[in-house]
Amino acid sequence: MPPSLPAALVVLSGGQDSTTCLYWALNQFGTGTVLALTFDYGQRHRIEIDCAIQVAARAGVPHTILPINTFAALGGNALTDAGIPVQSGANSNTELPNTFVPGRNLIFLTFAAAFAYPRGIHHLVAGVAQTDYSGYPDCRQATLQALEQTLRRGMDYDLTIHTPLMFKSKAETVIMARDLGAWSALADTHTCYHGQQPPCGECPACLLRAKGFAEAGLADPLVERCRAFPP
Amino acid sequence: MPPSLPAALVVLSGGQDSTTCLYWALNQFGTGTVLALTFDYGQRHRIEIDCAIQVAARAGVPHTILPINTFAALGGNALTDAGIPVQSGANSNTELPNTFVPGRNLIFLTFAAAFAYPRGIHHLVAGVAQTDYSGYPDCRQATLQALEQTLRRGMDYDLTIHTPLMFKSKAETVIMARDLGAWSALADTHTCYHGQQPPCGECPACLLRAKGFAEAGLADPLVERCRAFPP
Repeated sequence: MPPSLPAALVVLSGGQDSTTCLYWALNQFGTGTVLALTFDYGQRHRIEIDCAIQVAARAGVPHTILPINTFAALGGNALTDAGIPVQSGANSNTELPNTFVPGRNLIFLTFAAAFAYPRGIHHLVAGVAQTDYSGYPDCRQATLQALEQTLRRGMDYDLTIHTPLMFKSKAETVIMARDLGAWSALADTHTCYHGQQPPCGECPACLLRAKGFAEAGLADPLVERCRAFPP
Repeated sequence: MPPSLPAALVVLSGGQDSTTCLYWALNQFGTGTVLALTFDYGQRHRIEIDCAIQVAARAGVPHTILPINTFAALGGNALTDAGIPVQSGANSNTELPNTFVPGRNLIFLTFAAAFAYPRGIHHLVAGVAQTDYSGYPDCRQATLQALEQTLRRGMDYDLTIHTPLMFKSKAETVIMARDLGAWSALADTHTCYHGQQPPCGECPACLLRAKGFAEAGLADPLVERCRAFPP
């Protein structure tokens, strides 16, 4: 039998959600038909990319890292601009945090589509969730649906964007990861906005992650690993 | 009186169409309220960016050049990959030319929106045209409408994408440029896929440009200038 053509491309950030989506895709499309794509866009912490590399390697998935130097040139947000402290105040539920990079997921998925197109890949998978605490408008279902239309029309190509976590709580995502066999992989993921391992436990991303595991009644494999094998 | 806030952002490639759109925007929104944005995305010819700089300077419009290193990393097309010759065969009406970069205009306009957002700019202007010979699907009205929806939803921001050339023939665009006072500026623009000045006159872009001026019954100011002042 000839090797399967790649069927799906997962946008892999090296975080908990996209890692869970990678295992969802392997389950959905089959081993050997999934590729992973990570963007090196000037994120504050190189550790995110290292985590994505580890996650993809553990899953046996071919992995490409694409550079995007544009966000850093745009400047003015805490995710790529080291001069801006990450906001972790009490207002994070009422307004967009200063880690908001306008259009970030739109750019990621459009480049993912441009990567998928010449490879004959018709399925994109992204770990965005509308339930995400942050209120990022580019994570919402309505946005992703409009983007899918835009990509289909703009490339004249049949593309589907899968967002298996869209309506899940963080606790449900934790359970899903366990059921999909992504548990060990979660120990390789990165969440902390401060780039720390063990995670700082205090930034909005760490707090959200901890809440998810607590509500699922499960211990975070990353925290366990850091306890057993301090980095 | 305080200076006007910027109202519109024109995506300026340094070509004939986007230059015409810059003058359309100046006419529509008023001098002092228009900004221009050019992408340095690894195009084959640096001359395009130099032309954009000249055009913006002549028009007195603040001009930003943003880098995008991702298309070159994606590779595989004649616009950014110097190893691939530009296709100029007879089939250019029936299939996509090999200068097709999937999603290029989607990326440009999404980054333009990300640039516009923190500046309070609500109007984007792009020189795309559905009548363009190339058949690029990311130049079509239906695509741009879907993209506008996507950007509005994805940034939770009121944005309008203006495409004043969408249904114009090249000849109509030439007339429009003349009527908008963009005539001298057209002498600063660049079209040739081979990066030549004077233009090669043989590549698809040069042929299309020449056809437009011929049908409008007007001489191309760029050709005139190169004749009068050989570069």
